[in-house]
Amino acid sequence: MTDAKKRVTIYDVAKVAGVAPSTVSRAFSRPGRVNAETSRRIYEVAEGLGYRSQSPARLDTGKVSKILAFVVSDINNPFLTHIMRGFQQEASQQGYTTLLIDSQESDSAERSSIEKIIHLVDGVVLTSSRMSDSTISQIMKVKPVIAINREVRGVPSILPDTDRGVRQAVELIASHHHKRLLYLAGPESSWADGVRWRALAESCDELDITLKRIGPYPPSLMGGITASRVWIRQQSSAVMAYNDLLAIGFMKAVQNAGFNVPGDVSVIGMDNTITTALTTPTLTTVATPRTCWVCGLLALSSISCRTGRSNNPRP
Amino acid sequence: MTDAKKRVTIYDVAKVAGVAPSTVSRAFSRPGRVNAETSRRIYEVAEGLGYRSQSPARLDTGKVSKILAFVVSDINNPFLTHIMRGFQQEASQQGYTTLLIDSQESDSAERSSIEKIIHLVDGVVLTSSRMSDSTISQIMKVKPVIAINREVRGVPSILPDTDRGVRQAVELIASHHHKRLLYLAGPESSWADGVRWRALAESCDELDITLKRIGPYPPSLMGGITASRVWIRQQSSAVMAYNDLLAIGFMKAVQNAGFNVPGDVSVIGMDNTITTALTTPTLTTVATPRTCWVCGLLALSSISCRTGRSNNPRP
Repeated sequence: MTDAKKRVTIYDVAKVAGVAPSTVSRAFSRPGRVNAETSRRIYEVAEGLGYRSQSPARLDTGKVSKILAFVVSDINNPFLTHIMRGFQQEASQQGYTTLLIDSQESDSAERSSIEKIIHLVDGVVLTSSRMSDSTISQIMKVKPVIAINREVRGVPSILPDTDRGVRQAVELIASHHHKRLLYLAGPESSWADGVRWRALAESCDELDITLKRIGPYPPSLMGGITASRVWIRQQSSAVMAYNDLLAIGFMKAVQNAGFNVPGDVSVIGMDNTITTALTTPTLTTVATPRTCWVCGLLALSSISCRTGRSNNPRP
Repeated sequence: MTDAKKRVTIYDVAKVAGVAPSTVSRAFSRPGRVNAETSRRIYEVAEGLGYRSQSPARLDTGKVSKILAFVVSDINNPFLTHIMRGFQQEASQQGYTTLLIDSQESDSAERSSIEKIIHLVDGVVLTSSRMSDSTISQIMKVKPVIAINREVRGVPSILPDTDRGVRQAVELIASHHHKRLLYLAGPESSWADGVRWRALAESCDELDITLKRIGPYPPSLMGGITASRVWIRQQSSAVMAYNDLLAIGFMKAVQNAGFNVPGDVSVIGMDNTITTALTTPTLTTVATPRTCWVCGLLALSSISCRTGRSNNPRP
């Protein structure tokens, strides 16, 4: 030790403050665990004696590269946060930090956030993007882009097999002898809503089920509560929602209004998020195998980041 | 128009492709709504004729300032995302873009992400941070920091009145004649867990309730499921959990094991998140008025960003 003066330790502080050394240690490392008054006394004594709690390594703020932006349309949607978690973990193993952007279902917020950070990141992942095709194509010219749950010409994308999933749901509805199905639509700017609606219309047509549509609704619990008010006036024995949150909000609201699920109405969600396990009865939902999303994403991610960087010189 | 050649319009494309002009328009603006085969034909015709869909304003990628980082310990915790949404909306009105960082309950991931982006942002908001006091103090030297649900000396922070909230919960438990309470603890590195546990111990002592603690558990649905296995062996008529997710996971697991809630066990959560409304029965929980969080945050935010910037010269 090059210090001439003897260094003050937690033992010195403990002695003066009249507490155990372990209490001093806890007061500095996990302050919540020590009573506020004791903490204050320890801090005062420590300051008086010139005690410095451990000297941690200095912040390493030099690295500014290897950052990816992950843009979600709604951070409260467990379907999106689940994909995001998988992506983050894998990106982190490859040395990338993930910055998240929550566009809050707004195409203009999504665009302006991306404009601000595009030069700070190495690539952009868009999930259920609400932006127009042309805006996405423009972003693609600046940095590599991957689109999840959205198809844009020229942009690598990962898509669920909506036709097959929806077909299975409609077959289930038909097997329970329902003759009419009500679709609770998601946001107008959702690409997935368009694809799901078309797949529903085709399957219902083939299986002789009368399909009606109400909405658009925000894809949230509140959206489902709003939709339930329309259903109560024009009941249909089967309901399918744009996503799980909408389905759960709807289900809880009709249950609260005295209806029985599935006795009075069968409800089907979409996405198979963990929240579906919280309801009673457990919500029926259309699943996409999650690992496929993440695997596909990573496969595309590594390709796109590599080729994208060399092919797209930065402006 | 300065173009000598007549510009190709959607009417030209529609004519050649044999579809309505509105279908061409939809194929370009909301591709999900048009059948895949039709879309492909339209795109081919458009390319052949040299049609360019609307020429949107170019990306404005010049702005790189006015960015705030919002760090959460778990993006799947609705309590944190709710506070974040309020913050984002207000920040956006003041011209700030919010970048989110999900530290996934890891203090090292939290720290290394912040190191990477600290020079790109104007300030950092930490919610339920898992980092040590000294690391937070170091960050504070580089950029303004606000801590939510965490107390660090010298760092502006917003804290709930845990003592009062926990006291009310314990009084409710006492009024139902429970004599024993089991606490399902949250993560060891959680400041709030320490504060909650101390407040519980004090209230239980005063109200003559025997308090036990099991854990630590991850503050998630899975954590609650794990905790339920311990409870089944050593039952207690009242259970309080570190947060709502842990409480809900616990409740669903004991219900699935054939126990009645609240007949066999009363369960209380903490945070009053919207997920508590999804369960049957609705979960009892300790609430913090949300608007206070956001108001406090914004008040601190504007003070800290302003004074912080002038007082802390950038390295």
